[in-house]
Amino acid sequence: MSEFDVIARYFSSLGAGRRVELSVGDDAAALSVPPDSELIVSTDSSVLGTHFTDDTFSEHVGYKAVASAASDLAAMGAEPLAMTLGLTMPSVDDLWLHGLSQGLAQACRHYALPLVGGDTTRGPLALTVTVMGFCPRGQKLLRSGAHVGDRVCVSGTLGDAAFGLSLVQGKHRGIDIDFDAQEYLVNRLSFPLARIDLGIALRGLATSCIDVSDGLLQDASHIANASGCRLVIHQDAIPLSTPLIEAAGDRHALQLALTGGEDYELLFTLPADCDIPDGTVVIGSVEAGEGVDCGLTLEETGYDHFH
Amino acid sequence: MSEFDVIARYFSSLGAGRRVELSVGDDAAALSVPPDSELIVSTDSSVLGTHFTDDTFSEHVGYKAVASAASDLAAMGAEPLAMTLGLTMPSVDDLWLHGLSQGLAQACRHYALPLVGGDTTRGPLALTVTVMGFCPRGQKLLRSGAHVGDRVCVSGTLGDAAFGLSLVQGKHRGIDIDFDAQEYLVNRLSFPLARIDLGIALRGLATSCIDVSDGLLQDASHIANASGCRLVIHQDAIPLSTPLIEAAGDRHALQLALTGGEDYELLFTLPADCDIPDGTVVIGSVEAGEGVDCGLTLEETGYDHFH
Repeated sequence: MSEFDVIARYFSSLGAGRRVELSVGDDAAALSVPPDSELIVSTDSSVLGTHFTDDTFSEHVGYKAVASAASDLAAMGAEPLAMTLGLTMPSVDDLWLHGLSQGLAQACRHYALPLVGGDTTRGPLALTVTVMGFCPRGQKLLRSGAHVGDRVCVSGTLGDAAFGLSLVQGKHRGIDIDFDAQEYLVNRLSFPLARIDLGIALRGLATSCIDVSDGLLQDASHIANASGCRLVIHQDAIPLSTPLIEAAGDRHALQLALTGGEDYELLFTLPADCDIPDGTVVIGSVEAGEGVDCGLTLEETGYDHFH
Repeated sequence: MSEFDVIARYFSSLGAGRRVELSVGDDAAALSVPPDSELIVSTDSSVLGTHFTDDTFSEHVGYKAVASAASDLAAMGAEPLAMTLGLTMPSVDDLWLHGLSQGLAQACRHYALPLVGGDTTRGPLALTVTVMGFCPRGQKLLRSGAHVGDRVCVSGTLGDAAFGLSLVQGKHRGIDIDFDAQEYLVNRLSFPLARIDLGIALRGLATSCIDVSDGLLQDASHIANASGCRLVIHQDAIPLSTPLIEAAGDRHALQLALTGGEDYELLFTLPADCDIPDGTVVIGSVEAGEGVDCGLTLEETGYDHFH
């Protein structure tokens, strides 16, 4: 048994689940998909130098690889089923691997995503996670169903992860920022929360849905393009956390909410007669036309500055 | 739209299929799994420097990444459903990508594996393929069901890909080997054939099954270990191709068949009263005990020499 086989065995303790018929150890895994449902599948890669650095805690790398992929399930209104992991490493670094497995385990349990298979190979450090979920046939949430007159809603708060990233990158050294605020903002970056329960609750209600991974403006434009309509967003309604406002100031906080990525909140559209789910707010409306209007010029959004 | 988004669009033409409800372009793909079946899933990575080199034609890289993953479906007796691809590249090399997409397209079509999603990111060159398939509930082929008295069978011929690899590596330069034989052997390496139809035909018949990816001895030992029995293999019965015997000689050909990898044939066990499927041969029997016996010492198998 090679050192890489040992790793595979190490991860195999994460492979049990009620819909897992066969986990790690054969040529493939076997899963039960509930009847009358569709299988929902998404693949996400995390690569050293692109998605994380040598300084990133491996626990965060593992947790986030799963959570960000799970967020795609949330955006579809899917219930988690299982996941596989392609892990490539230049060598076996026990300390790094220990942290990675801790982060993976935490996320696998939190999102009920048993790790049922994968491949561990030698090469530059990278993870590719494939998540599978399911939802009742015909009830999946798409980007393409927004209608004129719908309200535009979002969960949680936006911009936190983008400021957390700039903190991790050391861009605010020497500036006095409250420690608790820093901790909150960095945690929003490192331990994002995929909104699985909200996605499930939006089945049959939301006319469109997407997770905010690339920034509010960009992800709103995906809904606008896919639905053939215009999303008008009221900048004053965009939810901002107190730590973000305290750390970044009102104007910069708004810019980060509009153009910063990796918040993994859900952006969705609801017909006017629907109740607004707990933990979400109305930030705008769907109108005829195309594109996204937030009442600011591209320059004012800070788009050029942050990309 | 970034250059990497363009690539994703390029691959999106491969995403259609009768069980594909939603392909590339939303947060995730949606698939229909036939009722009363189990979902079969496997993930395989191909990494530059580990699985292929800068000299490997990208068409071969793409084809083989899919075919070798499809072979895991074959070994389970699964019918192909769909696949996703995590593709990491240092930069966008149009010529390389064109070849890759040709190879991917050829394999996707051949194996009826629509490419329904994935992630294209910047980083060291690597592919991670996740294949999904299905088989009727309870009919999947495992490694663990071999019984004493069963016959051990294998499809096709063994050792060809290993000699093909040594040809590609330039290890036989200056040695006179028939050109047609070289072409056949290199094609066995570069365009392996996943035995999907055989795997499906073995449902309800084979007591165990595995694909020969690591060499006959090693893969036979996986069946022996999982089934708690001993596999006795008659070396004279191991199927060898004429080109391999001509190129390598009898003794070396046998060694390659025993210890060379990447043939992707199916190794399986059948009860004594079963007909032997076309294109397969009996190479041994299942006995009480453990391990694999091929009548040769480890040294005679050439194991040390090739690993």
